[in-house]
Amino acid sequence: MDSAASTPVADEVIEEMMPFLKRHYGNPSSIHGFGRETSRAIQLARSRVATLIGALPREITFTSGGTEADNLALQGVAFHNRNSGKPTSIITSSLEHDAVLEPCKELERMGFRLTYLPATGDGIVKPSVLKDAISPDVALVSIMYANNEVGTVQPIKKLCEIAHEAGALFHTDAVQAAGKIPINVRELGVDLMSMSSHKINGPKGVGALFIRSGLELAPILRGGGQETSLRSGTENVPGIVGFGKACELAGGRMDQYRQRVTELRDYLVNRVLKDIPHSRLNGSRTDRIPGNAHFTFFGVNGEDLIIKLDENGIAASTGSACSVKRQKPSHVLKAMGFSHEEITGSLRLSLGMQNTKEEIEEVVSSLSRVVSELRLVSPFKSKYA
Amino acid sequence: MDSAASTPVADEVIEEMMPFLKRHYGNPSSIHGFGRETSRAIQLARSRVATLIGALPREITFTSGGTEADNLALQGVAFHNRNSGKPTSIITSSLEHDAVLEPCKELERMGFRLTYLPATGDGIVKPSVLKDAISPDVALVSIMYANNEVGTVQPIKKLCEIAHEAGALFHTDAVQAAGKIPINVRELGVDLMSMSSHKINGPKGVGALFIRSGLELAPILRGGGQETSLRSGTENVPGIVGFGKACELAGGRMDQYRQRVTELRDYLVNRVLKDIPHSRLNGSRTDRIPGNAHFTFFGVNGEDLIIKLDENGIAASTGSACSVKRQKPSHVLKAMGFSHEEITGSLRLSLGMQNTKEEIEEVVSSLSRVVSELRLVSPFKSKYA
Repeated sequence: MDSAASTPVADEVIEEMMPFLKRHYGNPSSIHGFGRETSRAIQLARSRVATLIGALPREITFTSGGTEADNLALQGVAFHNRNSGKPTSIITSSLEHDAVLEPCKELERMGFRLTYLPATGDGIVKPSVLKDAISPDVALVSIMYANNEVGTVQPIKKLCEIAHEAGALFHTDAVQAAGKIPINVRELGVDLMSMSSHKINGPKGVGALFIRSGLELAPILRGGGQETSLRSGTENVPGIVGFGKACELAGGRMDQYRQRVTELRDYLVNRVLKDIPHSRLNGSRTDRIPGNAHFTFFGVNGEDLIIKLDENGIAASTGSACSVKRQKPSHVLKAMGFSHEEITGSLRLSLGMQNTKEEIEEVVSSLSRVVSELRLVSPFKSKYA
Repeated sequence: MDSAASTPVADEVIEEMMPFLKRHYGNPSSIHGFGRETSRAIQLARSRVATLIGALPREITFTSGGTEADNLALQGVAFHNRNSGKPTSIITSSLEHDAVLEPCKELERMGFRLTYLPATGDGIVKPSVLKDAISPDVALVSIMYANNEVGTVQPIKKLCEIAHEAGALFHTDAVQAAGKIPINVRELGVDLMSMSSHKINGPKGVGALFIRSGLELAPILRGGGQETSLRSGTENVPGIVGFGKACELAGGRMDQYRQRVTELRDYLVNRVLKDIPHSRLNGSRTDRIPGNAHFTFFGVNGEDLIIKLDENGIAASTGSACSVKRQKPSHVLKAMGFSHEEITGSLRLSLGMQNTKEEIEEVVSSLSRVVSELRLVSPFKSKYA
């Protein structure tokens, strides 16, 4: 129940990758046959990734993952614009993943002007809020497509229009969305979009940044000039090949995924809210990615819940896998105006294609039992137990 | 004959990686069992990489490859020192890989002071040259361990001593050396060392930077705080696991590798110089990594040679795989003082464990024939044909 953190690599993806580990091991930059072979494989993967999001192959730059894609988008625009005397201010939201927030904070330390937009209690960044904040000195607006903790889908098209009206570029971190809900970069109008492979049954260690044709960015990693000098370093051929296949699979099963995972998720949500008292669903009921369910169980500690669920063989999360180890309260829930108690009692259950209705039954029954047990030993016992 | 560009992934490495594609797919940052499992696998890989070079596991930071490791070392020291008011000048050599030279050029554009040391005709950076160039405002000296084109091994220990005497840190790009010749970071005294997986029968898309314990660097990629906040982004678990295994294999077969590959290489060199007139071995005869043979065939064009050899099923290179596509003359050979003709006629043949003596025979015979053919149509025909 932690598909938002990572997913198993699909059999078809592994099958596609295998020859590029062993047999086709040429360096794609080599001009001989071994190199041309892997170079062609990268081009095929590039067109598969592009197809998933309605882009051109040359608009896809492969990276080592979503984090590098986010860093490249932000640093890339900031440094390119600074070097060419263009506007350099950046607007983002307080809901972003750390892969956006941390590079933003660094740019702020370096003297760039940053604005962090607030969110509603449901976790939505309202277009009117962006409209009020934007000005002609803004280079880039970066708002995530779907939130990794509460699953809220932002009104990207509207936000993008407002950015463009003010002459700013628009980036979206679509790590939790791409491959799960239909995305067409042309319809949306976005200039930059980050994607990750391991969230959609592709291998870890690979992702991509969509860069609208004609847009110039400063690279982060410099060297041999791979990826049209935007991202140097010998290409992760098996990873890229696997990511390409994962995108093809995701595109082909989009409707099936949405139907199946939404149904399972809704069943889970309804059962939890019905069976477990003092529980609440967080985030938007409607604008939400299929796999995400995020609750607050009043009177319990989410981390205790995770440990107890883990003992029952159930993987869950308090929020972002990437920051739980740091044990800091979720900045996303804070931005949504949650109280300390509401944050403490929060739990993310995220679903994927591999989950079954039987598993959901088991999860609800374990969760119900574990929440009751924890409430019995909670300081808030009198209130919720 | 292009093992310096890339190598096939060893069977043992693939076997070790497979479970982490399919079954153990947890996000290492997750606190549940699936996450702890992959987190443990990363720790094992970290200690295997550390063991190969005589480091402590915590001194190994995984990256997406050698290029990122080089960029992290250079930017990491430069930005950390600038932010903390320490010296910021950098000394490197004119022989470095583009993964060092390009970030250096960017730092220069940003206002950092860079010095590029010259090399001897054999491709050696002489310690006396560094001694003359160094001053107390130098933050970092970065000299590669073994050159990717001509295979020359630098006097790293001496260069490192000179850097330390002047109060500078020492980084070495050991992408072509680590796992091929014995390296102990303590004996050498280096502070930073870059490594790559796919040069030693590990998968592409993963590498590491050795960072001496206690040394502080500014990160390049920011986000979830993985790799003790030095390199954010969900870890490439299968890649890291594979790299760890490749390091273990390389360590175990070091003597065997050196003996076998040196013998094959020497046989190749002697046969070529004997059978093909107007041919010359470039680089040092003695201070050279086992797998490298680099020739100039006067009166022919190296790129024509590669194409002709490719038609015969033989993979070769004019130099760095990473820059051949750009068709620019080798900066390494220029730095060694080569004439245009000497550069044009150059060819790198690089060997690995998979090569056999029969293959060498075949290569020499093809090469001999192809060189003769090309000389017959060369403008220098009268001179060499």
